[in-house]
Amino acid sequence: MPLDPRRTVSDLNQLRALTADHHGAQRIAWSKTWLEARAWFQSKLAELPVEHHLDAAGNSWTTLRGESDRTLILGSHLDSVPNGGWLDGSLGVLTSFEVLRSLAEDYHGKPPVTLRLVDWADEEGARFGRSLFGSSAFAGTHSIQADRGRTDRDGIRLEDALRQCHVDIDRIGEASDERGNAGAYLELHIEQGPVLERLSLPLGVVLGTKGVERHAIIFHGQEAHSGSTPMAVRRDALAAAAKLALEIRPIARKHPDAVATMGSVKTFPGIVTAVVGRCETTLDMRDLDAGVLASMLAEAQEASRRFAAEEGCTVEWSRIWSIEPIPFDPALIELCDQAVRETAGASHRLPSGPLHDAAEVARAGIPVVMMFTQSLAGLSHNPAENTKTEHLELAVQAFDRLARKTMQRLIS
Amino acid sequence: MPLDPRRTVSDLNQLRALTADHHGAQRIAWSKTWLEARAWFQSKLAELPVEHHLDAAGNSWTTLRGESDRTLILGSHLDSVPNGGWLDGSLGVLTSFEVLRSLAEDYHGKPPVTLRLVDWADEEGARFGRSLFGSSAFAGTHSIQADRGRTDRDGIRLEDALRQCHVDIDRIGEASDERGNAGAYLELHIEQGPVLERLSLPLGVVLGTKGVERHAIIFHGQEAHSGSTPMAVRRDALAAAAKLALEIRPIARKHPDAVATMGSVKTFPGIVTAVVGRCETTLDMRDLDAGVLASMLAEAQEASRRFAAEEGCTVEWSRIWSIEPIPFDPALIELCDQAVRETAGASHRLPSGPLHDAAEVARAGIPVVMMFTQSLAGLSHNPAENTKTEHLELAVQAFDRLARKTMQRLIS
Repeated sequence: MPLDPRRTVSDLNQLRALTADHHGAQRIAWSKTWLEARAWFQSKLAELPVEHHLDAAGNSWTTLRGESDRTLILGSHLDSVPNGGWLDGSLGVLTSFEVLRSLAEDYHGKPPVTLRLVDWADEEGARFGRSLFGSSAFAGTHSIQADRGRTDRDGIRLEDALRQCHVDIDRIGEASDERGNAGAYLELHIEQGPVLERLSLPLGVVLGTKGVERHAIIFHGQEAHSGSTPMAVRRDALAAAAKLALEIRPIARKHPDAVATMGSVKTFPGIVTAVVGRCETTLDMRDLDAGVLASMLAEAQEASRRFAAEEGCTVEWSRIWSIEPIPFDPALIELCDQAVRETAGASHRLPSGPLHDAAEVARAGIPVVMMFTQSLAGLSHNPAENTKTEHLELAVQAFDRLARKTMQRLIS
Repeated sequence: MPLDPRRTVSDLNQLRALTADHHGAQRIAWSKTWLEARAWFQSKLAELPVEHHLDAAGNSWTTLRGESDRTLILGSHLDSVPNGGWLDGSLGVLTSFEVLRSLAEDYHGKPPVTLRLVDWADEEGARFGRSLFGSSAFAGTHSIQADRGRTDRDGIRLEDALRQCHVDIDRIGEASDERGNAGAYLELHIEQGPVLERLSLPLGVVLGTKGVERHAIIFHGQEAHSGSTPMAVRRDALAAAAKLALEIRPIARKHPDAVATMGSVKTFPGIVTAVVGRCETTLDMRDLDAGVLASMLAEAQEASRRFAAEEGCTVEWSRIWSIEPIPFDPALIELCDQAVRETAGASHRLPSGPLHDAAEVARAGIPVVMMFTQSLAGLSHNPAENTKTEHLELAVQAFDRLARKTMQRLIS
């Protein structure tokens, strides 16, 4: 049976029926529903001439041995956030399955290179706040000493939840054994943003994941009575923060793909009758270019100090988290672009704002590329997440093309 | 014994010792400490040829009968906010006492007009959220049907707290009986703002209390992922709110005494990784001129709609509370200005941003003026509230002058 994109859509619907309630997908990693999703997926593999095992970090590996040990990895994740969408992660896993099935058939169970399908464990980090769990263990970038004390809302420790799933927290680093002869990693994912929809394109090529600078910024002014304090003598911490909220936008807009977001503002004392004495804000800045990201951060810091001085305030920065930009492999980007053009007639290259397991694989030194399919209204992490059926089917075709092109490249 | 301003400062210190702990003054209306403060004050009246009673709203009236029934009322309030200052309210009551004592002596117990000293009940509204309780009952502007269901933090009803202090909530309107032959009301208070300190003036004349427009303003945009949503397609509710937070300042600065404050900003979902989908803010605007206040409100509303449109958002206003400006009596303002100049060499006229019992008395149609004394650093409702001793002593002298001038005016 040749590639059958409609079967992938049918599989996705089956998984949704199995693992979603009326609030959305509930495939939270390490949960009963997630294990059920994985068991359902295993049952589908029975028809193929493959080996299967879980690695030391709980990543699920399905291997179709080829003529060569040189390995092409396809994958994504079956886990979801609570009340999540039906496509985030599962599209990549089920498309990879369809491609694997098609290649197994075309090559009579023995393709020229070894093919592996990976379902990464806990990409979302929804329960314990540690995203990219399995892929970072694979890449050797995990932070288990820092993460082992994490607990969920019910006080259950990460360590104990892992043990329930037969994962020993002290051995997750052994997942790096799976890197073996990996020559390339390919991942299909929904865009989770509005770019392709606005361009009326079904598919795009991902240049890499943006670096992130995430900071807490506190402006300190002087709390004062709203009735008795003349405008001229105020030291209004909100005014300084408001100026920064507006200034980060031209700072980001100088660069085509950069974003800057003030997502949280808290005012103290935060009452209708007092000038704001303290304003706590957060800033999240992203770009694919490390130099651009550093200059954006420097500009925002300089602007915040200028605004604080203008308003008689002081400002204090502290980094919440950061990660460097992770560019994908130029040669694979070219192959992906070809595959998209051949399938959909037109392509578009874009960076990914959200992180993905592919970024961790790239950090392990393995050539990586991702393909995006259009998201309707840019929604994800939401039961309303959706993609047109025709675009899902095009994605399966294009991802199959990309896998075949990459396989050729690995043997040439 | 002639007027003795040092005795007033000594009385204020006595009251502080009796009613403050290390967090500040605790003379919360209807509390044990407040009743103790009132009892202490009664004990001081024993030396004077006066009558005393509580009215139906719990206001404390001390009357020195004069040659005429025409009445001059002096007063303020002994109650404080929790963790309050030593001067807010008590300065006016104890200065009025010193002036009453001095006049009683000078006129051998029979001044040309009747003099009354009032200690208003529950000016602050600290416990039940209903400020100007006693003076609004006196003025007939009370809102007892709306207020009777109020409870304190412990769930005790206003009605029951009043009963403990022998006040029947259904009869508080009878406090209007006290208006009698009132010809003028004078009140001395600390400024609670920085204006006089910045002018290096000990005393000022209050033109009236500003009108207040207090609104909740909600901007609705679109929550979106901070990483995957390009700057150009965002509908950022915080950006619209930030523009308004900055725009209210030039709107207010067009008018010499106007103020406009955004005191509270809340962001939803309010997380570092999401563009703000909903931003809830508050706006408090004040001016002594009703026309100015109305035009400021209209300008802010127009600006908010413009900013919402610019950011692809909508905006929704709802009034929290408002009160009209209450101008004081022009002739009494002149007398107060003279008294201040004669005492301190220079005067300054200013509106009051905070409300005072004097505003309610003015609403009852009685000619009113207030005198302010300088507040250090503009602080009040705070244990750090303070005024220089020399300024307190000048205030007693100037208020005595004002009372004598007003008395002359009432008999002429």
